[in-house]
Amino acid sequence: MFKLYYAPGTCALATHIALEEAGAAYEAVRVDFGSQAQRGPEYLAINPKGRVPALVTERGALTETPGLLLFVAQHFPAAELAPLTDPFGLAQVQEFNSYLCATVHVAHAHGRRGARWADDPAAIEAMKRKVSQTMTECAGLIEDKFLKGPWVMGEQYTICDPYLFTIGTWLEGDGVDTAKLPGILDHRRRMLARPAVQRAVSAEGTQIP
Amino acid sequence: MFKLYYAPGTCALATHIALEEAGAAYEAVRVDFGSQAQRGPEYLAINPKGRVPALVTERGALTETPGLLLFVAQHFPAAELAPLTDPFGLAQVQEFNSYLCATVHVAHAHGRRGARWADDPAAIEAMKRKVSQTMTECAGLIEDKFLKGPWVMGEQYTICDPYLFTIGTWLEGDGVDTAKLPGILDHRRRMLARPAVQRAVSAEGTQIP
Repeated sequence: MFKLYYAPGTCALATHIALEEAGAAYEAVRVDFGSQAQRGPEYLAINPKGRVPALVTERGALTETPGLLLFVAQHFPAAELAPLTDPFGLAQVQEFNSYLCATVHVAHAHGRRGARWADDPAAIEAMKRKVSQTMTECAGLIEDKFLKGPWVMGEQYTICDPYLFTIGTWLEGDGVDTAKLPGILDHRRRMLARPAVQRAVSAEGTQIP
Repeated sequence: MFKLYYAPGTCALATHIALEEAGAAYEAVRVDFGSQAQRGPEYLAINPKGRVPALVTERGALTETPGLLLFVAQHFPAAELAPLTDPFGLAQVQEFNSYLCATVHVAHAHGRRGARWADDPAAIEAMKRKVSQTMTECAGLIEDKFLKGPWVMGEQYTICDPYLFTIGTWLEGDGVDTAKLPGILDHRRRMLARPAVQRAVSAEGTQIP
C-alpha cells in the first residue's frame, strides 16, 4: 500500500487523482503546512526537499510530480494513463508535464514563495505583481498551442490531464481571466465529471474556482 | 535525421550528450541568442516557448530537457540510458531530472533571467544576490542525498548524468564553492573522460570550470 503525502491546494492533487484513476491501493496522509510539518525531521526523512507530494512505495519514497505521474502510469499499465511504449508520445507527455512543473508552477510560486529567490521584501512584492501576467502568458500558450482537446494529448486521457487540472485551479487566484480560456474551462468541466477526480477533490477539500 | 536546436552554455548540452551517447544520427543547429533568434518567427514555429533545446523528429518537435532525455533513452534502448521497464527506477530518473529542471535550473535562471519574474530592476538585482545561496543549497542536496556515485543513479550511467554534468558547469559561475562538493567534481571528471561528452562539449565550445 502506497502512502501519498499531500497538502490541500498544492500540486499533490495531480498524483492523488492519478492514483484514483489507476485504482491504486494507497493512503493519503495530509502534511500540516500550518505547523510547518513539511520542514520537520519526520517529513524531511521522507523528502529532504521539504515539499509535497511524496509517494512512499515498498521500494522507497518518490517525489516530483512529473516523476510520480509517470510512475503511476507505468506501475498500473491497465489504466492506460500514458502512451508507455511510444517514445514520441511519451516524450510529449513528459514535455507538457515538465512545462507545468518548471515554468507554470514556478510562475505561480512567485506569488507566494518569492522568499525562495530573493530576501528583499520589496523584491518579493515585485514578484507578486507580475504573477497575473506570467500566468496569463502560460495559460495562453496552453490554450492556443498545447491543449489538443478534449484532453491535453487529444482523444486519450493521460497523466497530463490531472496535472493541468490541478494547476488550472490556481488560475483565477493568480489573476488570470479564465473567461478568455474556453479550452481550459472545458477541460476543467470534463475533469470534474470524472469520478476519480471527484474522489480526490473531495478527499482534499480542494477549492474549485 | 534529427535536428537539435541548441545554444552554447544552455541546458541543451544535456540532450546533445545523450544523442552522442546513443549514437543518434542528428544535426546540431546553433540558435543565435546574440540576435535573439530564439524569439524570431522561424524558431517560434519550432518551439513557441522561444527556448532551447528543441529536437525536431520525423513526427514533430519536442522540447523540455526531461522529456527529450527520456525520448533519447526510449528511442535508442540499446544504449541503456535509463531503466525503461522498471517503473520505480524510471521514476527515480524523472524525479532527479525534474528537480534539476524545476528547482536547480530555475534557481540559476534568477541570476540572468530575473526579468521573467519581476519588472523592477532592484528586484532583479535582489534575485541575482541570492543565486549563490540557492545554488549552493541545491548542489549540497545533490551531493549529500541524490548523487549515489559513481553515476547519479549508482553503477548505471543514465540520462541523469549528462543533465547533472550540464547544470554542474554553471556552479562556479553562480558562486558555488565546488571544492566542498567532491562527489560532483568526481562526477564531472568521469563525464569528461567519456568520448560522447567530449564530442558534444567540443561541438558547442562549452566552457568547463
